[in-house]
Amino acid sequence: MTKLNGSWVETANSPDTDFPLNNLPYGAFHFAGGDLRAGVAIGDHILDVTALEKAGLLDLHESNVFSRGTWNDFMALGSGVWEGFRGFLTSALSEGAKQQSDFEPHLVAMADATLEMPFSVTEFTDFYAGRHHAFNVGSLFRDPANALPPNWLHIPIGYNGRASSVVVSGTDITRPNGQLKSPDMDMPVFEPSKRFDLELEMGAIVGKPSKGRVSVQEADDMIFGYVLLNDWSARDIQAWEYQPLGPFQSKATATTISPWIVTKAALEPFRSSTPAREKELLPYLQEPGPMLYDIDLEVALAPEGKKETILSQTNYNVMYYSAAQQLTHHTTSGCPMRVGDLLGSGTISGPEKNNRGSLLELSWGGKEPLTLDTGDKRTFLEDGDTLTLRGVARGDGFRIGFGECRGTLRPAPPLD
Amino acid sequence: MTKLNGSWVETANSPDTDFPLNNLPYGAFHFAGGDLRAGVAIGDHILDVTALEKAGLLDLHESNVFSRGTWNDFMALGSGVWEGFRGFLTSALSEGAKQQSDFEPHLVAMADATLEMPFSVTEFTDFYAGRHHAFNVGSLFRDPANALPPNWLHIPIGYNGRASSVVVSGTDITRPNGQLKSPDMDMPVFEPSKRFDLELEMGAIVGKPSKGRVSVQEADDMIFGYVLLNDWSARDIQAWEYQPLGPFQSKATATTISPWIVTKAALEPFRSSTPAREKELLPYLQEPGPMLYDIDLEVALAPEGKKETILSQTNYNVMYYSAAQQLTHHTTSGCPMRVGDLLGSGTISGPEKNNRGSLLELSWGGKEPLTLDTGDKRTFLEDGDTLTLRGVARGDGFRIGFGECRGTLRPAPPLD
Repeated sequence: MTKLNGSWVETANSPDTDFPLNNLPYGAFHFAGGDLRAGVAIGDHILDVTALEKAGLLDLHESNVFSRGTWNDFMALGSGVWEGFRGFLTSALSEGAKQQSDFEPHLVAMADATLEMPFSVTEFTDFYAGRHHAFNVGSLFRDPANALPPNWLHIPIGYNGRASSVVVSGTDITRPNGQLKSPDMDMPVFEPSKRFDLELEMGAIVGKPSKGRVSVQEADDMIFGYVLLNDWSARDIQAWEYQPLGPFQSKATATTISPWIVTKAALEPFRSSTPAREKELLPYLQEPGPMLYDIDLEVALAPEGKKETILSQTNYNVMYYSAAQQLTHHTTSGCPMRVGDLLGSGTISGPEKNNRGSLLELSWGGKEPLTLDTGDKRTFLEDGDTLTLRGVARGDGFRIGFGECRGTLRPAPPLD
Repeated sequence: MTKLNGSWVETANSPDTDFPLNNLPYGAFHFAGGDLRAGVAIGDHILDVTALEKAGLLDLHESNVFSRGTWNDFMALGSGVWEGFRGFLTSALSEGAKQQSDFEPHLVAMADATLEMPFSVTEFTDFYAGRHHAFNVGSLFRDPANALPPNWLHIPIGYNGRASSVVVSGTDITRPNGQLKSPDMDMPVFEPSKRFDLELEMGAIVGKPSKGRVSVQEADDMIFGYVLLNDWSARDIQAWEYQPLGPFQSKATATTISPWIVTKAALEPFRSSTPAREKELLPYLQEPGPMLYDIDLEVALAPEGKKETILSQTNYNVMYYSAAQQLTHHTTSGCPMRVGDLLGSGTISGPEKNNRGSLLELSWGGKEPLTLDTGDKRTFLEDGDTLTLRGVARGDGFRIGFGECRGTLRPAPPLD
């Protein structure tokens, strides 16, 4: 499926849509005052699958799969159902499909809908798997000759994040207060973070549970789909809190995900191998095939009321570890994985300065302010800034998009 | 309520029961082949509240609170309901209560029941709030003159753990495999952990959700109750993985909790202040009243088929930070807290060697093997070892117990 598949939904056939028939990503939405519904993006419309199920127009051999309006119950049905349903949708939305007249009443304009969290996040794990990001951060905090931690080339380093703080694109982000202490201060203070940052990441969603260790192939099979992910980070809170047990409140304010889950099936034509290994991996982590994806990514920043500047452009295929490798490592201890677990890839920075996926790297720790197209300068984020992540896999005459992953930063809450 | 309250359940009036009328802890159980039920421990019996609800003998103004057999739905009803229900149970189980004949058919022998997870863990956070533990670990890995990390006296240091790995007492624990690398090795290996350990902790359960920062008093009000908690830890996996983002797979094999949630109300007479501050805390972390508890704790180890040895005895009141302070800190970034969140206190070690809450400390990093009463020697855990934590608050002629927090270590899974 590397060429455009034609649909009776006209706008899905445009080369400029993120949502051609080849994509069919899964989301959740509501209209003003309405209840939550599960939907599938097609062109500039959403197919209301909660309504289709209620109307008896789906054939899933299960009832009430979409009554909660999220995709967790569907994921839990297993990969056979994932494939069957995608095949059914592809056929029903194709040019000339006999379902057109039945389905048309359940097609709603995306512009009229409010997009919500497409799934309920069970647990959230964030990784640190970008070679260039780890090198940049290590160079900033240690030195370039010794930038990578000794374990980095052997382990996809990760830590548990906070599922309760994951929000959907469009949700405002409140600058956090926190304990801060720079080395020149005697005592910490409790103040708004002054070094609030973004992290450009991809998120992988676990759709199949496990107990005990899984192979990299099994891990890949467990992944349901991918989202864009912005792991908002308070660098000054992190610097003071993170030794010895890792980031905690610095990463707990919010993590924004894109509204559409792009399925692994839709990304299949874009598989890409991890880069050459600098040290051989232990056998349990070796990939049996390409498990990254060729997805162009960009970060845009718009100061309040002004136009956006593209801060960075990179690609998911620069990562050192794939989500499948991360998931395999996650299970080594016997850690049970559940439907709805979310794995953040780690910040995706490429080799050049304009490929960096965080302001920490782009402003080199705040020492080299960026000048935006509007003339504004930035080291870290300012109140009112809107951050937008975009991602696209490019086929022949079509593209696969995720919808925007966007958030606007609001001032910190009062201190009392 | 510091004296024994008499009950018509005779065994609840014994000075040797963990479950007098003053306690009334909340758990979940089933009989062979039966469904999960919520229950309240009283003497050597369990009051089947799922059955009481079905029989119309509870008056909660809500239906199906206990139909799932766990306490999450009850917690979500709020602290007014918590108080009212405890008052109702205390009255109905008191000597001479008019409910005796109605309730007696729903009293089941604890010995016949299998105890299950009393609540569904939403997210799990583990702290590092024991002064003696942090000093011991810092002395082992750094030096005694510089043992505490610089932030330790200012922040209740914590990290996110893995909710999916929390299990109830009695669940077997499988020794994890993992990446190990000692400093003398060129490359890591993937092998069973050789330094598998326990951590004696208390767990606090969040019963009321929050968005945004809460005060220490509000945090205390959000806590529903406490359990004993054993945070099984693979020290060798941790040593290799934990820089720079903290423990991950070393803590993800399992965390065992006691089967009974002892409510904050039952522990009220045993409140205890945190020790004197070595450095003044920032105002947001200062306690308005005593929020630790005087709970005697012990750890016992029994090699397979042999009698147990008490490894350690300590008290929860030695902790430097209370669960309320930890929960307050947890919310500073705006991190949302939800019903069913579990906070581990951190390892509870007292000032003396026989007060230490982990084998890492007891065997001083493996350099000083312990001799058990059976003559066996231990540095870390061996396959077949059964670890049991016990906790008791002592009133006048009665005690408040949690039930045992027990797990037996089984061999690591095959490597292929």
